[in-house]
Amino acid sequence: MRADHEQVSRLLKTARGQIDGILKMIEEDRYCMDVSNQLMATQSILKKANRMVLAAHMDGCVRDAIESGKPEEKMEELAALLDKLMS
Amino acid sequence: MRADHEQVSRLLKTARGQIDGILKMIEEDRYCMDVSNQLMATQSILKKANRMVLAAHMDGCVRDAIESGKPEEKMEELAALLDKLMS
Amino acid sequence: MRADHEQVSRLLKTARGQIDGILKMIEEDRYCMDVSNQLMATQSILKKANRMVLAAHMDGCVRDAIESGKPEEKMEELAALLDKLMS
Amino acid sequence: MRADHEQVSRLLKTARGQIDGILKMIEEDRYCMDVSNQLMATQSILKKANRMVLAAHMDGCVRDAIESGKPEEKMEELAALLDKLMS
Repeated sequence: MRADHEQVSRLLKTARGQIDGILKMIEEDRYCMDVSNQLMATQSILKKANRMVLAAHMDGCVRDAIESGKPEEKMEELAALLDKLMS
Repeated sequence: MRADHEQVSRLLKTARGQIDGILKMIEEDRYCMDVSNQLMATQSILKKANRMVLAAHMDGCVRDAIESGKPEEKMEELAALLDKLMS
Repeated sequence: MRADHEQVSRLLKTARGQIDGILKMIEEDRYCMDVSNQLMATQSILKKANRMVLAAHMDGCVRDAIESGKPEEKMEELAALLDKLMS
Repeated sequence: MRADHEQVSRLLKTARGQIDGILKMIEEDRYCMDVSNQLMATQSILKKANRMVLAAHMDGCVRDAIESGKPEEKMEELAALLDKLMS
């Protein structure tokens, strides 16, 4: 993976910590909306991690593939990803 | 929380397991697109958990608040949630 | 509809004007990314209109239904809407 | 634009027709949720048009730019688009 490993890992560990927190909230039978808000906050962190991964992918793997004259596979992956993100 | 605790917890534990898997993928320097796909799969699981939490909230807390004649706070929360989901 | 009719109509007319503009861009065979950006801008306007409609719905119809002691149908609609927005 | 002009234009004309319909619904003071549902249906049509435009862009302009040895600008556009779609 081309993105900064440390930065992405840190986000993932934060997300994991939040999931542990939500599991605890469920055990303690906390209020639905508080659980829901924490779930959405965790989704946001994963989304941020994904943006970092994909920005570095574009700037790394995709660029390399083009420079090496073999971009086809990367382009197909990107087209599929775009289509998925817009679905 | 009104949703089935066991079902929501099970989804959260699956998401946590996937995050552990992604952290390992990063350590092993796996391919960006594979990391990205796992990140999106984990987001989907959290989204599913959130849908369960909110469906039960509507059917539980919101209904109770209306029946007890004090729906104002719940309605404001719902309006804010709707606005957030559409932003 | 409870939202300000004039405000929502104005947004819709702007969106319609943009669609006319995009149809012209297509006739003139303009660049894909310019067409795509205009399409996304038009989606944003419709989204904004929808937020206004739903905010006023919560504050109007839903409130009335609760006050009149018949909230069931509105609550079912809201639950379905929430589920749709999160899908 | 590389996408099938006729197909995209047809979708846009459908969307425009729906907007006209929604404007009429507002004049007739129709129910909020009916207006909202039509607004979401129109957004879906524009989204579908955008997917067609971008799929053809990937398969056309981006491919050409790579083959002509000048992919930089297209790649920057794609990176920006990805980031926007994930925001």
